[in-house]
Amino acid sequence: MKGVARRDVQRLAQGVLEPAAPDDVVAEEPLEIRAQGETLAITMRTPGADRELAIGFLLSEGIIATRDDVGSVAHCGRPDQEGFGNTIDVRPGPGVSLDIDKLSATRRGTITTAACGVCGRRSVDEVIARCTPQMVAEATIASTTILRAVEELRGRQPNFARTGGIHAAALHDAAGNVLASFEDIGRHNACDKVIGALVLKGLIPGREAALLVVSGRASYEVVQKASAAGVPVVASVSAASSLAVDLARAAGITLCGFVRGGAMTVYSHPGRIR
Amino acid sequence: MKGVARRDVQRLAQGVLEPAAPDDVVAEEPLEIRAQGETLAITMRTPGADRELAIGFLLSEGIIATRDDVGSVAHCGRPDQEGFGNTIDVRPGPGVSLDIDKLSATRRGTITTAACGVCGRRSVDEVIARCTPQMVAEATIASTTILRAVEELRGRQPNFARTGGIHAAALHDAAGNVLASFEDIGRHNACDKVIGALVLKGLIPGREAALLVVSGRASYEVVQKASAAGVPVVASVSAASSLAVDLARAAGITLCGFVRGGAMTVYSHPGRIR
Repeated sequence: MKGVARRDVQRLAQGVLEPAAPDDVVAEEPLEIRAQGETLAITMRTPGADRELAIGFLLSEGIIATRDDVGSVAHCGRPDQEGFGNTIDVRPGPGVSLDIDKLSATRRGTITTAACGVCGRRSVDEVIARCTPQMVAEATIASTTILRAVEELRGRQPNFARTGGIHAAALHDAAGNVLASFEDIGRHNACDKVIGALVLKGLIPGREAALLVVSGRASYEVVQKASAAGVPVVASVSAASSLAVDLARAAGITLCGFVRGGAMTVYSHPGRIR
Repeated sequence: MKGVARRDVQRLAQGVLEPAAPDDVVAEEPLEIRAQGETLAITMRTPGADRELAIGFLLSEGIIATRDDVGSVAHCGRPDQEGFGNTIDVRPGPGVSLDIDKLSATRRGTITTAACGVCGRRSVDEVIARCTPQMVAEATIASTTILRAVEELRGRQPNFARTGGIHAAALHDAAGNVLASFEDIGRHNACDKVIGALVLKGLIPGREAALLVVSGRASYEVVQKASAAGVPVVASVSAASSLAVDLARAAGITLCGFVRGGAMTVYSHPGRIR
């Protein structure tokens, strides 16, 4: 199964080292994401759904908006080359030019001002400035739908069951139906994959999806990706960070954390929850 | 307490939304790390121990080797400027020039070859090529020391107890004594902080520390940081990734995962464990 690798390991219990035996570990490999042949990022990811990952990444960076912006998405090179499958290039659709300068300053890592250019408020402002007007601000969602979606996420993690070391994300519509679900060693990659999967189908995530569910915690980056895709509700199994809360409030996103045992903590915009 | 922020949140339980009340959330803010005034990276981190973080990051990227390479480490700008405290600059010591071109290709995100330049093996090779010869290859460590260090890590996480959303790392010597311990929303930042703390004290991490303990999982990046610092044993509470295992084997690092309940999984170089 893609996403899982085998390695010989040894268990040590009660001071005794057992003989080596093969075990499943989560696969981690670098992926270089290019647009029009130019490198945008290298991310450590779990191989599989690389096209979805690349498209979701470009959407969350504001470089593409819809399927029409995309001509082709394909791995570079030849299958017989070492490292084939670890570089992917997104080519623009007919008449489209991808503006890779939109890559966020945080992502580029190249702030050019001499002043102290980086702070939480400006990071939030930068995301807000990119927000598309497609946000489903009017959508409401039942609290039971959120609770069920988070509970069911573990069941959509076959590789977690085998490796214990992989995150997952899922997109649901307002009725709770699953639209996309992926696992990845990086939570942000799993978010990119589910968003990219919808875009590749020609769908507008903000129109179809009401809820982004993630395993583990909700960081700034998770809320940023929901915001860029116009998904109005984010729910995580565990805690949210201060910047995730601040961004969710500013971007009009309903952020729920510690969704477990029939309860949750609502950090922002509770009005959207029925 | 630095590292923790307060936000008004609402609990939703049994379908009822309770009134808003302040709650602790883990603080997340961007930090721009500069060397000689040039931006190397922007990382989302938990404020606090920024000097340690910057120094650990530069060591793990091979840009500095010892305390002598460092002249000053200080936040840029004036305290009355917005965002003060979120940009830090490392200036070289007397007669030292920091080679920021050493920043790894993965970190830079700018592979310049036309071929498919990125793959797991090359990422491992790149790290091996940077490894310092100070690796404590001869050190051995008792399995009970590893088990205890991991068990005690949670007790060194005051902010986890309050927020449920923060990682931690600790460095121990071969006898199990704690040399440094920090929390951060990013596991890799926590690793940089503990390593940077030793360097700032003028110590060589690979000479003093035998064990790096991290909460959660062991990814490529965690093993890479241990390798750059010459720390021979890495232990994590949860799973290890394929690339973490491959790097640990190639770099001569003993990698232990799922360290809990008196047992562990040993992924590489078990000979170092007594």
